[in-house]
Amino acid sequence: MLCMKVQDLEFGDEIEVKWKRMVLKGILVSKDSEFLNLKLKNGYNLSLDISKVTSLKLIEKKINIPTERKSIKGKGKRVSILGTGGTIASYVDYATGAVKPLETAQDVLYAEPELQELGDIDAEIVFNIFSEDMNSKYWEILAKKVFEKTSNGEGVVVTHGTDTMSFTSSALSFMIDNPEAPIVLTGSQRSSDRPSSDAHFNLLGSVKVAQSDLGEVAVVMHSTSSGNSLTIHRGVNVRKMHTSRRDAFKSINSEPIGTIDSNLSIKFAEYRKINGKPSKLYEKMNEKVSLIYYYPGMDKEILYGICERKDGMIIAGTGLGHVSNTFISDLEGFVKDGKIIGMTSQCLNGSVNLDVYSTGRRLTGAGVISLGDMLPEVAYVKLSFLLGNFTVEESKLLLNRNLKGEIHDRRRE
Amino acid sequence: MLCMKVQDLEFGDEIEVKWKRMVLKGILVSKDSEFLNLKLKNGYNLSLDISKVTSLKLIEKKINIPTERKSIKGKGKRVSILGTGGTIASYVDYATGAVKPLETAQDVLYAEPELQELGDIDAEIVFNIFSEDMNSKYWEILAKKVFEKTSNGEGVVVTHGTDTMSFTSSALSFMIDNPEAPIVLTGSQRSSDRPSSDAHFNLLGSVKVAQSDLGEVAVVMHSTSSGNSLTIHRGVNVRKMHTSRRDAFKSINSEPIGTIDSNLSIKFAEYRKINGKPSKLYEKMNEKVSLIYYYPGMDKEILYGICERKDGMIIAGTGLGHVSNTFISDLEGFVKDGKIIGMTSQCLNGSVNLDVYSTGRRLTGAGVISLGDMLPEVAYVKLSFLLGNFTVEESKLLLNRNLKGEIHDRRRE
Repeated sequence: MLCMKVQDLEFGDEIEVKWKRMVLKGILVSKDSEFLNLKLKNGYNLSLDISKVTSLKLIEKKINIPTERKSIKGKGKRVSILGTGGTIASYVDYATGAVKPLETAQDVLYAEPELQELGDIDAEIVFNIFSEDMNSKYWEILAKKVFEKTSNGEGVVVTHGTDTMSFTSSALSFMIDNPEAPIVLTGSQRSSDRPSSDAHFNLLGSVKVAQSDLGEVAVVMHSTSSGNSLTIHRGVNVRKMHTSRRDAFKSINSEPIGTIDSNLSIKFAEYRKINGKPSKLYEKMNEKVSLIYYYPGMDKEILYGICERKDGMIIAGTGLGHVSNTFISDLEGFVKDGKIIGMTSQCLNGSVNLDVYSTGRRLTGAGVISLGDMLPEVAYVKLSFLLGNFTVEESKLLLNRNLKGEIHDRRRE
Repeated sequence: MLCMKVQDLEFGDEIEVKWKRMVLKGILVSKDSEFLNLKLKNGYNLSLDISKVTSLKLIEKKINIPTERKSIKGKGKRVSILGTGGTIASYVDYATGAVKPLETAQDVLYAEPELQELGDIDAEIVFNIFSEDMNSKYWEILAKKVFEKTSNGEGVVVTHGTDTMSFTSSALSFMIDNPEAPIVLTGSQRSSDRPSSDAHFNLLGSVKVAQSDLGEVAVVMHSTSSGNSLTIHRGVNVRKMHTSRRDAFKSINSEPIGTIDSNLSIKFAEYRKINGKPSKLYEKMNEKVSLIYYYPGMDKEILYGICERKDGMIIAGTGLGHVSNTFISDLEGFVKDGKIIGMTSQCLNGSVNLDVYSTGRRLTGAGVISLGDMLPEVAYVKLSFLLGNFTVEESKLLLNRNLKGEIHDRRRE
């Protein structure tokens, strides 16, 4: 059985093919019902008859940057909608029951009449992926595109799959310093053609926030299951806390920065305004960072396997930030080798505190950095950002310093 | 710098010592201010002068099974308190500010006058560890001890560190089938000598539940931060959701099975009663199981490093249960090699559903098992239990079948 089906592959995908007992790696350049054409690393093109292919693996999805755009003229401030894929950019194929992606910028504007009421809307598909396929390369592409727009004074709405939206909102929060216009991420838990879809209201509310004086990255999603209000979450404080509910997104260890009612009227709580300071794009993310949730019985080989190949690691420890005492001397060794190890808690709520118990004090002694109440996923993105743009020493200093609202001073009990 | 300090080591600990440029592994058999005595694997004892020791690593904590016991005669039904360590068995050393463990069964009975009001209490320290050092070996020891007690008709209260209490409550839920008396786990978020301690109320409430007709494993902890009621959680539905609050424990994807008011009066909701069916102990846990939380940018080497050495793996995927599409063919390979891979969600709330998106359908095609709304940590413990006591084929069938209330049929939106 083939794990990937030929029809699921796109031109540009990097694949591994077993064909006539040979294992071949390359980029898919074309295909038809009988043949795959593969460009190998050495530049050769090979044509492979599909009937002889016994295994097909996807190594890396193609990174697609279409240039297609669609604009509508409206009454208010100009907003750029940047599509990246996900349910909000999908529809249900009623023939098969499958959720399929929308493919054109035109499709993104399914809320067209209402959007026109709000402003000049420019829609563009930056890439089109399921958000579980997201990685730091996409963040680099997206941050650059968003920065272009905000530096032009245009508010941006990024439509995104909900699965990893909070990782991307964190990445943009760190990568774009002092944005000159609002940056809003939104998505939907139900595709736009379903009666219960949250896509329309989420998109309209996000456009309104993108027209405000917000000077930071926010996530806008349903507040409750009833669907009559939206919550504006700070990009570095939010986590998807339910698999299917429309109000799956929750601010953790912090209050949301605002709400939007059913008339699209915004009520901000504490938020950062556009501050006029020079805006800066940090272009790079370091891929050699990992995130690991500790559990009782985890063996040290897992830690070794990861640490040896990485520049940094975030641990989501138990309780106040603990791992087995048998791990500590190894962690100390990794820190001595110049790697950064940060501690968060898998409780998600509340703050790490390495001063209470001896395990915590030993971790501090070993050079593990206590990360307060920063969420594990946010800490992972932050460490990737820091090691992409700063030295190891600078990164160590900045990791547990609050940059974008990701760490809160108050200890919450 | 030594990572472990000599004074932190106990006799029986397995350690690795760098001494005069030699690396030695063995069991610590004695120590004084100048020398460590180490029993090597070949049976030799070596005496090492501490001044020449340049590095000291803990490989494995000694598993301690003291036999010390303490009983008090009271008015009501007999209950066994089994101590395993943790904050509930600790006090603050005001000289250093450190939290230190209680060391005797006598100490466990700090709530003695009130306990005497409740019943005949037998207290015993089974082992004394920080719960972050918990692993399946301890679960095997504890389950055997608990089974002895319940098979004798004695309700059991296990006092436990809160960090990994929900892993242990899951382990006992699966390992002891049809217990003949209640099994209750409790702990405390603040040590017993602090005015805000939750230790007393948690312990008294737990003893009351251990005297009831409950025929399953429960966790009893504070309901709210005000501390005037306790919640009785089903052992397989609970998770520590705050690092420091006294009401850190929450039932997820389910309602608690009861509450206890400040007069220690129990109000059960739906719960399992002692059913008179033959009780059975499953003694073994399989250590070769792992749990991994997926994140965007995770590389396949991490997966390989873990899967190659394990018999099974639980993934906490994104959203409805997703990982990068680039992982799927490798997961399929591992399943073909006879390994079990189960999918849960890092959203924690809500159910995995691999039928909605193509990524999910591909995962199903690859043989990954969808685990409904079972918590990732519970699924990890369950897989360890299944592979410890059943064949691979039986384990596959049982993994996504509800055994102890860990999977709920209703899809919650």
